[in-house]
Amino acid sequence: MANVKGAELVRPCILGNDPNLPEQTNEELKKEFNLKEVLSFNCNENPLGTSPKAIAAIQEHAKDVFLYPDATCTELRRKVAKANGIDEMQVLFGNGADNVLLMLTETFLNEGEEMIVGSPHFFVYNTTVQLVGGKLVTVPLKNYTVDLKAIKAAITPKTKLIMVCNPNNPTGTIVKEDEVKEFMKDIPDNVIVIFDEAYAEFVDAADYPNSLQYVNAGKKVLVIRTLSKIFGMAGCRIGYIMGPEYLIELMRRTVEYFAVNRVAQDAALAAMDDEEFLHKTLAVNKEGKEYLTKEFTAMGFTCQPSYTNFIFVDFHRDAREIADKLRRQGLLIAVGGGWNCPTCSRISIGTMEMNKKLVAAFKEILA
Amino acid sequence: MANVKGAELVRPCILGNDPNLPEQTNEELKKEFNLKEVLSFNCNENPLGTSPKAIAAIQEHAKDVFLYPDATCTELRRKVAKANGIDEMQVLFGNGADNVLLMLTETFLNEGEEMIVGSPHFFVYNTTVQLVGGKLVTVPLKNYTVDLKAIKAAITPKTKLIMVCNPNNPTGTIVKEDEVKEFMKDIPDNVIVIFDEAYAEFVDAADYPNSLQYVNAGKKVLVIRTLSKIFGMAGCRIGYIMGPEYLIELMRRTVEYFAVNRVAQDAALAAMDDEEFLHKTLAVNKEGKEYLTKEFTAMGFTCQPSYTNFIFVDFHRDAREIADKLRRQGLLIAVGGGWNCPTCSRISIGTMEMNKKLVAAFKEILA
Repeated sequence: MANVKGAELVRPCILGNDPNLPEQTNEELKKEFNLKEVLSFNCNENPLGTSPKAIAAIQEHAKDVFLYPDATCTELRRKVAKANGIDEMQVLFGNGADNVLLMLTETFLNEGEEMIVGSPHFFVYNTTVQLVGGKLVTVPLKNYTVDLKAIKAAITPKTKLIMVCNPNNPTGTIVKEDEVKEFMKDIPDNVIVIFDEAYAEFVDAADYPNSLQYVNAGKKVLVIRTLSKIFGMAGCRIGYIMGPEYLIELMRRTVEYFAVNRVAQDAALAAMDDEEFLHKTLAVNKEGKEYLTKEFTAMGFTCQPSYTNFIFVDFHRDAREIADKLRRQGLLIAVGGGWNCPTCSRISIGTMEMNKKLVAAFKEILA
Repeated sequence: MANVKGAELVRPCILGNDPNLPEQTNEELKKEFNLKEVLSFNCNENPLGTSPKAIAAIQEHAKDVFLYPDATCTELRRKVAKANGIDEMQVLFGNGADNVLLMLTETFLNEGEEMIVGSPHFFVYNTTVQLVGGKLVTVPLKNYTVDLKAIKAAITPKTKLIMVCNPNNPTGTIVKEDEVKEFMKDIPDNVIVIFDEAYAEFVDAADYPNSLQYVNAGKKVLVIRTLSKIFGMAGCRIGYIMGPEYLIELMRRTVEYFAVNRVAQDAALAAMDDEEFLHKTLAVNKEGKEYLTKEFTAMGFTCQPSYTNFIFVDFHRDAREIADKLRRQGLLIAVGGGWNCPTCSRISIGTMEMNKKLVAAFKEILA
């Protein structure tokens, strides 16, 4: 750190974050390797695109973007509250779930306090904890699954937040109802448990927990959701958090006043009503998951059972090397990510057309 | 503060910020007073709307919002860099200038350190300073204008940031080239001077300073701009900061990875090229400024000379009362804002049609 120019000017905690530097754009990648297209299997976007209803809403309201957005997303809060049987003041929207995660640490995590998370984990947990000078305590997954018992055992007097990413990013696994029920017993009263459910809508499992029940039971529990995934709105940036009204109101003290843009709000209102698009997305995802799992397994890879729109795959050989070969063909998969799994990749499920291109490229590489 | 529920759970500094609570929406206001329309003179939006080129870009790219945005706004950085004769790594975009202001305090302002600003000032300075436990030192304006001499005299060993809002929000006045030149002499080496130039494009004055010259001269100077104002994109949320590459790179450590949505990026690229729209905006603004100043002066109000798209008006009587009467007619003007000017309002300049409605309503109220 000592050789960072200007280091003496900054809050020391931010030196723990890497600068967000430019990476090669898809256009530059196309040019470098003379490619016709670049297909992303590295971001868990919705391969069907965005809900046609949301696209129509964006086009219709484009003329209104000279006006500031509704600062508290009134209509959306009401919609989410109604759908979940909670009050509209129990919902807070942000500029993507990433922004919600930042408000979370800004609100609750004092310098030196700890947030516990199962690891490998979503990289944004690192940066948001770092920004307030907190400490991220990582507890290894067990069988690629969040180990709630080990997390509970890791609680110290400095623990303030526990982040349960369910399904877990990057491994795609879930913790189940009975495990969560057991876990929620005897959590210290000054500790807040957050369920990051960015991929919840993809889960097809009867024993997936209803985390809002703990909110309704008066527990210090918060639940994060996003429009980036099943709703296909990653480019709009919109996510939200639900919880007890007083915790949500505390978080409102850290809000950037107009954090959620108008377009995202207009599009989200339309997308949430598009049942047809959601069903189609789930069907395409299911077919793709089965296909890719079968093909990857036949190649000798190990696939974790996925409850999401991605699969965590162990190649049993250097994953970066494979990713780089695919990249030269315009196929992007996620490796690294601070996961400490050098032979693994998180691969998003595409349309069948995309999936077949990916499988063909893998076969060529392995041949 | 003691009676805030859950106060013992949070970072104490955030209790200095009020929660961002829902306000009456325009739809609710219409319903309450049976109004056909609500006209905003309180947000300094572009009354001509958004550049038609930007609207077309939003509509064309609406189908792409399922993809994550470019995390570092590559094309936009290049465009801004070229236009300003600086390097693309000297530019950083955020989710509106508000988000840029947050990154600024997150990067540079340690707990207990001071940011100095001329006051009355833009309210976001309070919240962003508060979020890192810093201290906002306010220096009274002189003749409604930022008093650079007094600001310099207010520098202490704890001063880290000096925010020069130029033109100043809410008063619309500017500090001039020779004053800034004098001010920039002997600023302590550990102090960063920021010029918040959200309204720069409206300034028609030969002696308005070129603040980038201080960046080019190696000073610790940063310059903030936004697309919300003259470019008519307040609802998209996009703003940026320019400065020495090493200071910008330090700020990149506080970036929310995908802070700037795709739509804003697409729209901004188009809007920046729309010279026709910019010229039209300036012409409408000039005509409206002259008209409103004349009318308000005739009513016995005092108008500050404005270099922006708003006018700071002293009614010499309770401003809230007037604002409330206008609100019942669907006409919104800004009062309060922590300005400590109970007889003043910041009134955005509208189209002539809007301005005439506002003047007619004022005459009715004063009659």
